[in-house]
Amino acid sequence: MQLNRHPAGRHFLQIPGPGPVPDRILRAISLPTIDHRGPEFGALGLKVLDGIRQIFQTRHPVVIYPASGTGAWEAALVNTLSPGDAVLMVETGHFATLWKKMAERLGLAPEFLGLPGTEGWRRGVDADSIGQRLRADSGHRIQAVCVVHNETSTGVTSDIAAVRRAIDAAKHPALLMVDTISGLASADYRHDEWGVDVGIGGSQKGLMLPPGISFNALSPKALEASRSAALPKSFWAWDEMVESNRSGYWPYTPNTNLLYGLSESLDMLLAEGLPNVLARHRRWGEGVRAAVRAWGLEIQCAEPACYSPVLTGVVMPDGVDADRVRRIIHERFDLSLGTGLGKLKGRMFRIGHLGDSNDLTLLATLAGCEMGLKLAGVTLAGSGVQAAMDFFASREQADADVKVES
Amino acid sequence: MQLNRHPAGRHFLQIPGPGPVPDRILRAISLPTIDHRGPEFGALGLKVLDGIRQIFQTRHPVVIYPASGTGAWEAALVNTLSPGDAVLMVETGHFATLWKKMAERLGLAPEFLGLPGTEGWRRGVDADSIGQRLRADSGHRIQAVCVVHNETSTGVTSDIAAVRRAIDAAKHPALLMVDTISGLASADYRHDEWGVDVGIGGSQKGLMLPPGISFNALSPKALEASRSAALPKSFWAWDEMVESNRSGYWPYTPNTNLLYGLSESLDMLLAEGLPNVLARHRRWGEGVRAAVRAWGLEIQCAEPACYSPVLTGVVMPDGVDADRVRRIIHERFDLSLGTGLGKLKGRMFRIGHLGDSNDLTLLATLAGCEMGLKLAGVTLAGSGVQAAMDFFASREQADADVKVES
Amino acid sequence: MQLNRHPAGRHFLQIPGPGPVPDRILRAISLPTIDHRGPEFGALGLKVLDGIRQIFQTRHPVVIYPASGTGAWEAALVNTLSPGDAVLMVETGHFATLWKKMAERLGLAPEFLGLPGTEGWRRGVDADSIGQRLRADSGHRIQAVCVVHNETSTGVTSDIAAVRRAIDAAKHPALLMVDTISGLASADYRHDEWGVDVGIGGSQKGLMLPPGISFNALSPKALEASRSAALPKSFWAWDEMVESNRSGYWPYTPNTNLLYGLSESLDMLLAEGLPNVLARHRRWGEGVRAAVRAWGLEIQCAEPACYSPVLTGVVMPDGVDADRVRRIIHERFDLSLGTGLGKLKGRMFRIGHLGDSNDLTLLATLAGCEMGLKLAGVTLAGSGVQAAMDFFASREQADADVKVES
Amino acid sequence: MQLNRHPAGRHFLQIPGPGPVPDRILRAISLPTIDHRGPEFGALGLKVLDGIRQIFQTRHPVVIYPASGTGAWEAALVNTLSPGDAVLMVETGHFATLWKKMAERLGLAPEFLGLPGTEGWRRGVDADSIGQRLRADSGHRIQAVCVVHNETSTGVTSDIAAVRRAIDAAKHPALLMVDTISGLASADYRHDEWGVDVGIGGSQKGLMLPPGISFNALSPKALEASRSAALPKSFWAWDEMVESNRSGYWPYTPNTNLLYGLSESLDMLLAEGLPNVLARHRRWGEGVRAAVRAWGLEIQCAEPACYSPVLTGVVMPDGVDADRVRRIIHERFDLSLGTGLGKLKGRMFRIGHLGDSNDLTLLATLAGCEMGLKLAGVTLAGSGVQAAMDFFASREQADADVKVES
Repeated sequence: MQLNRHPAGRHFLQIPGPGPVPDRILRAISLPTIDHRGPEFGALGLKVLDGIRQIFQTRHPVVIYPASGTGAWEAALVNTLSPGDAVLMVETGHFATLWKKMAERLGLAPEFLGLPGTEGWRRGVDADSIGQRLRADSGHRIQAVCVVHNETSTGVTSDIAAVRRAIDAAKHPALLMVDTISGLASADYRHDEWGVDVGIGGSQKGLMLPPGISFNALSPKALEASRSAALPKSFWAWDEMVESNRSGYWPYTPNTNLLYGLSESLDMLLAEGLPNVLARHRRWGEGVRAAVRAWGLEIQCAEPACYSPVLTGVVMPDGVDADRVRRIIHERFDLSLGTGLGKLKGRMFRIGHLGDSNDLTLLATLAGCEMGLKLAGVTLAGSGVQAAMDFFASREQADADVKVES
Repeated sequence: MQLNRHPAGRHFLQIPGPGPVPDRILRAISLPTIDHRGPEFGALGLKVLDGIRQIFQTRHPVVIYPASGTGAWEAALVNTLSPGDAVLMVETGHFATLWKKMAERLGLAPEFLGLPGTEGWRRGVDADSIGQRLRADSGHRIQAVCVVHNETSTGVTSDIAAVRRAIDAAKHPALLMVDTISGLASADYRHDEWGVDVGIGGSQKGLMLPPGISFNALSPKALEASRSAALPKSFWAWDEMVESNRSGYWPYTPNTNLLYGLSESLDMLLAEGLPNVLARHRRWGEGVRAAVRAWGLEIQCAEPACYSPVLTGVVMPDGVDADRVRRIIHERFDLSLGTGLGKLKGRMFRIGHLGDSNDLTLLATLAGCEMGLKLAGVTLAGSGVQAAMDFFASREQADADVKVES
Repeated sequence: MQLNRHPAGRHFLQIPGPGPVPDRILRAISLPTIDHRGPEFGALGLKVLDGIRQIFQTRHPVVIYPASGTGAWEAALVNTLSPGDAVLMVETGHFATLWKKMAERLGLAPEFLGLPGTEGWRRGVDADSIGQRLRADSGHRIQAVCVVHNETSTGVTSDIAAVRRAIDAAKHPALLMVDTISGLASADYRHDEWGVDVGIGGSQKGLMLPPGISFNALSPKALEASRSAALPKSFWAWDEMVESNRSGYWPYTPNTNLLYGLSESLDMLLAEGLPNVLARHRRWGEGVRAAVRAWGLEIQCAEPACYSPVLTGVVMPDGVDADRVRRIIHERFDLSLGTGLGKLKGRMFRIGHLGDSNDLTLLATLAGCEMGLKLAGVTLAGSGVQAAMDFFASREQADADVKVES
Repeated sequence: MQLNRHPAGRHFLQIPGPGPVPDRILRAISLPTIDHRGPEFGALGLKVLDGIRQIFQTRHPVVIYPASGTGAWEAALVNTLSPGDAVLMVETGHFATLWKKMAERLGLAPEFLGLPGTEGWRRGVDADSIGQRLRADSGHRIQAVCVVHNETSTGVTSDIAAVRRAIDAAKHPALLMVDTISGLASADYRHDEWGVDVGIGGSQKGLMLPPGISFNALSPKALEASRSAALPKSFWAWDEMVESNRSGYWPYTPNTNLLYGLSESLDMLLAEGLPNVLARHRRWGEGVRAAVRAWGLEIQCAEPACYSPVLTGVVMPDGVDADRVRRIIHERFDLSLGTGLGKLKGRMFRIGHLGDSNDLTLLATLAGCEMGLKLAGVTLAGSGVQAAMDFFASREQADADVKVES
């Protein structure tokens, strides 16, 4: 298998997930498959189920599906809703749009709150407009509010606590469902504290795993709703999962080897401490944005309060095809960046700065972008690499004198 | 991670899937995750999509889901059927029963052909009774016939070609859906020649992979049916999959690292040649059955024509708890066997003989069974290990003189 | 790379080292190479140097060479001796003979104690004759007594404590050098208690590693001798090694990735406990010998007190070419056995039962031998597999009732 | 095992060997160990012996030792020389000095050609002075000329062909021995064309392997010399090696798993083509030197014709402790650089640019150096990263228009 067509060296995988998978995790997933009904498996199951709850910051059950993230979207909907149910969704970007399309395909009636054109793709969820809409729904026809925590297509992170407050202020019984697929373990996500009913996560982002497993974090209210929800479900059904998971097993064949990886990932994240993990993502985001500003290019996210710690969308000047830039960068410098999706096709590219990374890897990434932009004929205001170096070095200056003695 | 609580040595994983994953495949799945939208991925995707068609013996599309086998069951049903549709299913064992329950959960109306008690759990699908039932369905209310090719709970392999002939003879338009999850790449399965409409496969059996990916092999008629089928579907929908797969990509995030494993598996199977692969499974089945007969124990499958090349169910004498025997064997000899499922709980255990195995591994397995049975107080008629050694050595006698010169 | 020409299944590597390397160790040696001058390396170095001392049962320095076992033989000689020095060696088998040839090539004057023909190849070192020879050496011309602890070519384990007593009783100042390459971590070896001056070990035996590193365990007396020994040495020189090792580093480039494996191996062995490790080797040896006796074949080791817990030599009846038997077994059953070496070429084969193994693996091995012997036309008295099953099951019977509750 | 104390991301191993080992190679060395006397091994052995000859550019035998590079130095000397023999060595740096010390320890009489202080550590071998010295040796007392091809301590690559011409012009029969440990597969080395008698290589440099195996490439004249050379030798002896290697085997236990890695490495290098491999090393060297010049710092190598394609020595301004700079860089940026060795201790650091690397990895490395130098208080003339980006982007400009179509 030739997984990298470049002659030598390590590929720079800087898409907003999957990111580079740590060697410890890659080794773990290559351990021999065991009997998923045997005693060793039960111990593994209990361990990862307990650990993932810590990452979601919840005391309630988290379901782990042997399926990639899109499946967890479907699971959230089919477990809680009935055919024709109204759901309020918010157009924050491409993934919010895909989730809404899924709701339609499943026979739900999504209402899509958004701004004209791509305006909504540059800002976080407007909690006020959600509150307003819910107050107008005096008959409580709306069964669920569905929002994306970290929009992977734009690099915008929404304020979920504010959405919760808006629902509560409207005294509306709708469930709150949050896609934190690309947010989990990179951006702060507090399932219980924020009163989320279904939190949706995936493996190939902050958890630093390959794709292939995904999560539903539940609330008691969501479990309650699942008892009467009428959409057909079997593979995704929570009831048998939650029941089976009590002893560390799955009702059908789980994704054994990826669970080995999850076990290793949880060991790494919890040893480092979730607050430290989140802090380094915030720091990386700042460094990358310093570079984009130095280039004189626009950041896709227009609201500083919503800058994503996970990825940064870089808007191209008019007339520049972002995908041509990406292609040049990939071919010359062995660096993969995220493409512009949906309405942003060709208008921007996305730099992932998540998971198992560090300052030098991000500087290499920025160097690849800077050289590629120039090769593509884009005029830059200054050196982003220089700005990022200044940022990464200065932030370290403080502790420097303490830690290093000459 | 402590995946084996025994002090030393390699675990014998002799459940009927997952079986031992070859080292080459374990190494392949641990290679760094790549961008599933990048050029290298497209080449990988086309390769595995082409190879898996050869394994299913079909020229039509095979969909690869980033989900374990149970998901592929659901996919077959939701893509082709509408709420309330009648489907004819056959009670061959526990997995047939689970599939039927899934059909019910999804809002279908399965009719379950079977024999009283566990009688149907000892024989293959009776094509005649299917034909009879279909002829009686003059209004063509039955939309699909669903059968399990290789019943993993019993070790019975049904004659799918005969089912096809029965449907044709009845001139009935029902779709033929076949679960060959544990049959694929171990028992002969000919998708096109047998006129199967949806063939369902999984990764963790004859393909020698860990669990986590699964398959739907389609026929043109199944694809046609999917255009009007009304069950809600999104994650499982064939249309976007087949479209996206044309260029080697997936409509949502695929299970990248398991696809590396699939690529390696296909290289191994196609290099050996599918007929050779099937022949060694048949031979292993014969050897294991020779042992069971020598012990004086009953084989779960009562029809010699339907003996499975994948696994053998070993029935316990009255009064012996099969799970106690299994537990003794696991604790003393580090050997995992399949438990009795559903109606056979405690009555039998299952020996897997599939995938990446060989004569000595099976002899070790039989030795573990033989010692464990004795330790559990089961009186045996003779030595199964001896019988299997006689079989494995004699079958080789013929070629011996040719290949080895002293 | 095609490392196994058989169509499927795991190879049975039952030579007396290397044996099967545990998956945990294989994963460890594949972790990225680090800077052998960096801080992380120092911690690793100190850990493995400390652990290996526990395995040798010594408080004194153990040198770890980035070279395979033969190198450690040379190191023992060149660090302690001068050109023309007399050394007393004992002909226990092929490896003792090779070591003696090495001594000659290095310009030493070995005297080879032994019995006529292959008689000495069936028994342990005769401590009395060593004592006698030393007493005759009133001028103390003999500088060192060199013996093999576990003769890998024959399956004979000598009584090293007795040799020590003989030297002491003779009041002779000769150094005692012991090759425990295939004994270490499988047969009991007590460096300090037995007063060994140089203990020689290798990685690919009881330590369960691939070949590539080897050991010299030192005594203060050996270190003292090394200060005046005149044989030229540089790569093997202890002085710089011991000095450098104090801080966890090597004077030249160490074998970094195999040291990862050693770290994992030590974790495994010390967690199990050395006495438990030794006990399972003794038990395996008993089981295998039960089989050889049941076949009616002779065990190479003629002294029950010296039976090796590591390997068993199986003598062929007259007229049978042991290598033809081995070839048949390898070709049919994918099982590698040790060949007859030196004077025993074609007369016997060797079954390894060391390292990461278990009862079923050994039963598979014995089954392969039994079938192969028959295919080669050897008449067997009875079933060795049966005898070994009886042994392995009965030895377990006692604890059975305690541990398993039905 | 915690091989990297930094919280996240991949370590940058930019010492001049070992460099980053490619994932393909790490996976290969973790495959199960096989019988080094079995048929599969012979095929592997012949393959790697053939391939390594292509890398050395020789038709004559290359010996592969299961020992790290320092062992191959010793092997070259003990196989060809006798106690007290005069050898002419050249002080190009720390490794040349170590080799000379080894010659002394082994009882040879090395004569060390060099310049005062560290002057010789900045230039290549002066072939004229070698010629002059040999012409003065009219009695042909000098048995060998020993030079280092690529001085790993300085980043100076000497002209070996010129040394050959000087020896020939002097009509002197001395053997030519060349240490190309860090040169092989990175800097051009032509064993046969340049008339080298013993070429010495190691695994952990251009071959991209972990340390643990090393090489002696021989000439017929060297083999001839080995027949009468009187230094004691056994482990290093060529005769049994060359004899055994004919059939793909080793006279004693080889380093099996590292040979798997060598097999993979040879596949990679020969598929890319040695000229391409050498060209990318030259290009990397140019890029790194552009950065050093932009910083206004001195390059250790004072002769442009001898710039190493493998590493670059960066001289610190007076008063700056290079090891403090290195420590800051390691602690803050997870980047390992080579220390100043011997006479250059604290005066310079070394940047490795060899093996499995690429432009972005080197830019990350330069960014780490640039930030660390500033944090250490070093005043830089300009941005080396900027200079290297200009170089790496411009060199690509030419082919850009051809390869990328927008």
